[in-house]
Order: sequence, then C-alpha cells, then structure tokens
Amino acid sequence: MANLTLTTFDWVPAKPRGYVRDLRVRWALEEAALPYRVASVPFGPREAAHFAHQPFGQVPWLTDGDLSIFESGAILLHLGELSPRLMPSDPHGRSDTTEWVFAALNSVEMASLPWTMSKLMGHATDTPAWKFVDDFLKLRLKHLEPVLAAREWLAGPFSVADILMSDVLRIVDDYDGLAASPACRAYVARAIGRPAFAKARADQIAHFAAADKARGS
Amino acid sequence: MANLTLTTFDWVPAKPRGYVRDLRVRWALEEAALPYRVASVPFGPREAAHFAHQPFGQVPWLTDGDLSIFESGAILLHLGELSPRLMPSDPHGRSDTTEWVFAALNSVEMASLPWTMSKLMGHATDTPAWKFVDDFLKLRLKHLEPVLAAREWLAGPFSVADILMSDVLRIVDDYDGLAASPACRAYVARAIGRPAFAKARADQIAHFAAADKARGS
Repeated sequence: MANLTLTTFDWVPAKPRGYVRDLRVRWALEEAALPYRVASVPFGPREAAHFAHQPFGQVPWLTDGDLSIFESGAILLHLGELSPRLMPSDPHGRSDTTEWVFAALNSVEMASLPWTMSKLMGHATDTPAWKFVDDFLKLRLKHLEPVLAAREWLAGPFSVADILMSDVLRIVDDYDGLAASPACRAYVARAIGRPAFAKARADQIAHFAAADKARGS
Repeated sequence: MANLTLTTFDWVPAKPRGYVRDLRVRWALEEAALPYRVASVPFGPREAAHFAHQPFGQVPWLTDGDLSIFESGAILLHLGELSPRLMPSDPHGRSDTTEWVFAALNSVEMASLPWTMSKLMGHATDTPAWKFVDDFLKLRLKHLEPVLAAREWLAGPFSVADILMSDVLRIVDDYDGLAASPACRAYVARAIGRPAFAKARADQIAHFAAADKARGS
C-alpha cells in the first residue's frame, strides 16, 4: 500500500498560485483517488534538507515510503504504476503514455516555457530572439494540432500524459497563445473541466492562502 | 528477444553532425551491446509515414517489434528495461535513474537549449531576454555542480540518465559554458571518454557522410 506525501512550498506570491507544479501531482492523486498528505518547505532561503530531496531547490517532490522522487514527470510515471486510472497496464499503453509524457515536457514545454517566460517578463518582441522563441512554439503547436483534432486523449484513455500536456498548454492559452490552435484549446478545456483538476487547483490555492493568514498578511 | 530498429535522417548538414539525437540512442545501444539496425527517413519534406512515428517530424524513433517509440527520454527508459547496464533493476535504482532522466531533460536541457540556440544563432547578448536565458542556465549549473562533485554517476552505476545529462552538458561545454563548473566539465569528460560514446558518435558521422557520397557532394 502506497504511503504518499507530496511536498510543496509553505507559501508563494499571488501570481504563480494555481500554476505551481505540485498541481500536476495533486491532480494525478485526485484522479486516482490515492490517499496522500501534503508537507511544506520554506519558500524563503532553501535548507540543506530541501536540496537533499530536490537538488535544484524547487518543488514538488513525492515520498512513497522510503522512496523520494523529484521532477513532476518522474513523479507522474511513478503514480501511473500505482493506478490504471493514470496509465494503462499493458505494454503498448504504458509505452504510449511514457512517450507522450516526454513529448509534453520535451517537445512542447521546451518550446512553451521560453515563450511564457518572455510574456511574463515583458521581453521585447521586435528582436530575432523573440521571433525564434515564437516560431519554435508555433511549429510545435502546428504539429500537435492534428494529433489533438483526431483523438480525445493522447495515449488512449485519459492518463498522466494528458495531465502534463494540458497543464503545459493551459499556461500558453492563458497568454492567448492557442488562438490558431482550436483542437489544442478544446483539449485544454476538456482536461481542466475534470473534477480532479478543479479539486487540485482549489487545494493548491487554499494551501497558499492559509499561509497568508498565518503570516498575518 | 528485442528486435530493435533506430530511425534517423538520411542526411543532415555538416553543423549538427555529432549532435543529432539518434546519438543518445546509439550510445545506449552500444553500452548495452544490444543488436540493432539503423533505418533512414528523408531530411527533406517529411512524409506522412514519418509523422505517424514522430508527430513533430523529428528524429529519432525506435521500433522494438510492434512497439514504436519517439522522444529520446522515452526510448532510453525503454532500453533501460532491457539491460542492467543501462538501469539498475531494483526499485530504488530504477526510480533514481528515472528522476535523473527527467532532470537532465527538464531541469537542465530546458535551461541549456535556449542558451545554446542563442549562441548558435548569434542573438544579441545585451538584452534582458539574453540575461534571463544566461541566468537560468547558471542557476541550474550552480545546483548541479555539488551533485556532480560528490558522485561519479547520477544514479549509482552508469545509466541512461548519464547518457542524457552528459549529452546535454557536452553542447554547453562546446560553447564554453562550463568554465565555472569544473565538476560538470569533469563529468562530461568522464562520460564521453567511454568507448560506447566514441563508437556512437563515429557511427552517426559515418552515416551522414555516406549520404554525402550518395548525393555526389
């Protein structure tokens, strides 16, 4: 029996709330109806115990008994092994889910992160650097669009690959980056319309809001 | 018994030779001494059969019997299941290898790819956009440095995680991006000093050079 603890920050500023990556893990845990507890580490100066679990000083990480796992992709593959609601158990289904987990992070988020960070930070958009970033994302979306127009979920039934892909695309959509990609937009809407997403997002926002009260802010 | 075919481009220009990502797969196959054949698809206009295996029109992909897998991370995890030379078979070793596979791609390459592409394309370095890209990579290297100073390989014995992490860092090193990261540099030297890397790199270069001759160029 799994004994799961998800660790995230004790508090973050208002802007990233609803986007911190513990949401991907909460969402998977809610989809699978796996029991878990949530633990916190300081958002302020990171402690040695934090780096021992997450060498880059980020969140989340998950412990399952004496296993400690960082990287949301690795955590979601681990949870996929615990529940058929997160990953099919046959070899083809597992393989397809795994390749789309990597595709979400390495083919799409690799292109979308520089794009969303440039938007967030208000970098100039009249430069060759911005054109490269924008073209890179558009190329990926151009190829993803027919895939998502032809299927409901990436690897057959809903899986951890859809949690990752839709979370990656959701942020692009929030910056109006999916206007020319109707199938990608419909996919995001389909995914985030699931009750487990709503629960995960509400729980993350409540977690950080509770810290506001504790701080008296 | 695995029946492995690696597919890459039939030809690429001189500059990316030695860096095309089929190298990661060749390297793993050579480390494990797994038999495989190499197939080619046109570098020119991509055909429907190409997108059926790799929806983004990239390479490589691997077939193992009737399984077809794209994304070098997913391919290397699959090969890890086939050989203890690529991934320990105990649960802790598998979990540690998997998290470092994701860390190589999502914590390090997510930061290094914008950096190396900016270098390659000669983007301006007096902009906030460049400072963001450069600071992002430096932060990741700062945290990776003590990890690599304290261990020979990421997950215990040499594994697919080291193939990915060292291939990611090798390109940064080629642009003098590891000058302040001696443990990262020593790790890259250690990894690419392995005979299987040399064989994989030579085979990739010979594969594309053979296409030059066929083209009469």
